[in-house]
Amino acid sequence: MQDIDLLLHGRWVIPVEPDEQVLEHHCIAVNDGRILALLPSARAAQHYRAETELHLDHHALIPGLINAHTHTPMNLLRGLADDLPMMEWLHEHIWPAEQRWVNEEFVHDGGLLAMAEMLRGGITCFNDMYFFPEVTARAAAHLGMRACVGLIAIDFPTVYAGDADEYLAKGLALHDSYRNDPLIRTAFAPHAPYSVSDAPLQRIQTLADELDIPVHMHVHETADEVGQGLQQNGERPLARLDRLGLLSPALVGVHMTQLDDDEIARLAETGSHVVHCPESNLKLASGFCPAARLVAAGVNVALGTDGAASNNDLDLFSEMRTAALLGKAVSNDATALPAHTVLRMATLNGARALGLGAETGSLETGKWADITAVDLATLESQPVYHPVSQLVYAAGRHQVSDVWVAGRHLLKDRVLTGPDSDELLATAARWQAHLAET
Amino acid sequence: MQDIDLLLHGRWVIPVEPDEQVLEHHCIAVNDGRILALLPSARAAQHYRAETELHLDHHALIPGLINAHTHTPMNLLRGLADDLPMMEWLHEHIWPAEQRWVNEEFVHDGGLLAMAEMLRGGITCFNDMYFFPEVTARAAAHLGMRACVGLIAIDFPTVYAGDADEYLAKGLALHDSYRNDPLIRTAFAPHAPYSVSDAPLQRIQTLADELDIPVHMHVHETADEVGQGLQQNGERPLARLDRLGLLSPALVGVHMTQLDDDEIARLAETGSHVVHCPESNLKLASGFCPAARLVAAGVNVALGTDGAASNNDLDLFSEMRTAALLGKAVSNDATALPAHTVLRMATLNGARALGLGAETGSLETGKWADITAVDLATLESQPVYHPVSQLVYAAGRHQVSDVWVAGRHLLKDRVLTGPDSDELLATAARWQAHLAET
Repeated sequence: MQDIDLLLHGRWVIPVEPDEQVLEHHCIAVNDGRILALLPSARAAQHYRAETELHLDHHALIPGLINAHTHTPMNLLRGLADDLPMMEWLHEHIWPAEQRWVNEEFVHDGGLLAMAEMLRGGITCFNDMYFFPEVTARAAAHLGMRACVGLIAIDFPTVYAGDADEYLAKGLALHDSYRNDPLIRTAFAPHAPYSVSDAPLQRIQTLADELDIPVHMHVHETADEVGQGLQQNGERPLARLDRLGLLSPALVGVHMTQLDDDEIARLAETGSHVVHCPESNLKLASGFCPAARLVAAGVNVALGTDGAASNNDLDLFSEMRTAALLGKAVSNDATALPAHTVLRMATLNGARALGLGAETGSLETGKWADITAVDLATLESQPVYHPVSQLVYAAGRHQVSDVWVAGRHLLKDRVLTGPDSDELLATAARWQAHLAET
Repeated sequence: MQDIDLLLHGRWVIPVEPDEQVLEHHCIAVNDGRILALLPSARAAQHYRAETELHLDHHALIPGLINAHTHTPMNLLRGLADDLPMMEWLHEHIWPAEQRWVNEEFVHDGGLLAMAEMLRGGITCFNDMYFFPEVTARAAAHLGMRACVGLIAIDFPTVYAGDADEYLAKGLALHDSYRNDPLIRTAFAPHAPYSVSDAPLQRIQTLADELDIPVHMHVHETADEVGQGLQQNGERPLARLDRLGLLSPALVGVHMTQLDDDEIARLAETGSHVVHCPESNLKLASGFCPAARLVAAGVNVALGTDGAASNNDLDLFSEMRTAALLGKAVSNDATALPAHTVLRMATLNGARALGLGAETGSLETGKWADITAVDLATLESQPVYHPVSQLVYAAGRHQVSDVWVAGRHLLKDRVLTGPDSDELLATAARWQAHLAET
């Protein structure tokens, strides 16, 4: 008989690894923030005496979802400018608003709103790209949420930094200060091929190799980007990144709506990761990422929401559903991207892309107890013939009842245990009044 | 000063007609089940003394959503067979399950589950196609929900009817018994071009003209259907329907993923209606309905969820979002199908397709008080710069707090005032045990 911290009984436990496994009436034993064992609920009393024991009798327990691409502070810009072409949206609305309003307070307040939204939606870990990443890192660490914080780099000066050197110097300082943090990781985050020139990209790749951290970057988001790359450099942006040495298991390439067969093969060969953001790609009419073909080629494909200005929610349940549905239509094959594949994209594949595959992303002994409980006893998700189908095709994030990160109970019966929701709403209202002036 | 039944104060009132109008701090006055007036909240006290007065201070009031295509009893089959090609799904799973299990009880229980789901999701009216429509009609009337019940016809015998004559005879009897019902309407519902032959189609068209009711039919759902039609009849199914006289303001053609320019022009010319079911089309890899081109051509396009076996929810919020997102990607234009257009598709266009355009679908004086209140004061839908954007791109159906049909309060602070949710869940569990045997 062992004393442990936490014992969670689930109607279903879906570990994601091994694939397609659904354990019924099982529980997860947690101690010191990590998963100790998965075992049948009926046998748990013989093995463990838990400080906290929770019966989730109508719930599926799944690994905490991983949002592999977002811009958290943009939650303050949600719905500011919709139904517009991407470059008009960016140049005439988003960038002007950012230029006027972005500062440390904006990043803190928007980031906190986004993290609260993500936790309430079953997301335990996110991969961020934005200015003032040290503010985001501090907020996530304070909340107890897992994050990979992007060390942003872009050719043009912003309120955050003046040139490539300053972006990188600030990024490296941030990396150093979180080197041994159990929750906060960093990744280089050069914005995109069209906004970061060769020299900083090469320096980033060298540093990424030395520090063993990912390089998180928008790549081949649109056909225009590819066309302009060809015109300016005589090569497609992905070929340029390849030439500069960026295609590697460190690359987390986001969007990738424009890919030919050779490029898919090259991504697979180099072990590069792709983050599929189906809803953002649709909304900005960027194109269709060939997610099913990438998966078939052996590329690790994760899922991201993108920022709330182009989606407009940080909802991985919706993103899973859209990825599965769209994957079938795009490949003209109703069997493409089945439910268990997209659940894996939203969990373990995300962890692998961020270099966290040994730490989180599945419910396996030794991994951090990053766990999401989803209540399936609502009229809208009954009957339940196959729980994974139900999670992907019928359930919504509002059915997430509880979330643990490293064993800490961050969402309890739909209520955040950290930030106060009314305060968050008041903060959103304050920023709305400012931003509506833009 | 006038005594009235109901006065609803909304933070925003979005009438849909006129287009793009958002009224702030307005209220809706309701009497005898109908909308009496929309006016500024501040002025209401001078005009009306209401038996019930409700302040919905964080809510958008919109017309009740109209689900223009579904098969309600299929809620019992939700998630039974996912990630399969359409014909394998239909022939090897859905039809065998139906053959074994469909009876009046199945239709009643599945239908009630579906209606409960729809009301909780802000849907006040649905257009149904299934066997035993008299059972569905009775259940909807009993609940107080608005429905257009399909008088189904199909060439092959089922437990419901043996041949075309029997299908039509039963349908006509049903039509007669609801002729003067304020809530229940009927439509002929020949299943599809490939499953109903010329003679019954012509008879249906004659009867539809006489009775002045719609003809609700799956049309051009897949490329295979069109190919087979060409092979068997030497013409595309839509051309055959045109030849038989079915293209008219009575036609409610569902799916329509395969349409050339001439066909779009012909639909516009004849005043035929199209019901777009984006999620079902994606899931079964049927193809992309050119919704934006249809709208541009002047065709009335409504939205449907399809049945819960191919979607797998009856969620028009999700369907609006998918329609808007997909519409942009398919037309390679981020301005296509903007938020207010899809809100209209999910409301007034649905009413027009069902011949109910003068009765419901917008918040206008004289129409039935079919109203949905959506709470936008959640972290996930803040800030609110543009309420319609927020409804379409960020809100979920779980934010629907209240629903009225013809002035009757059918959902009150998220709780159904009619059926008991626990009983409905028990019913779902009972059927699940049966159906899992199939």
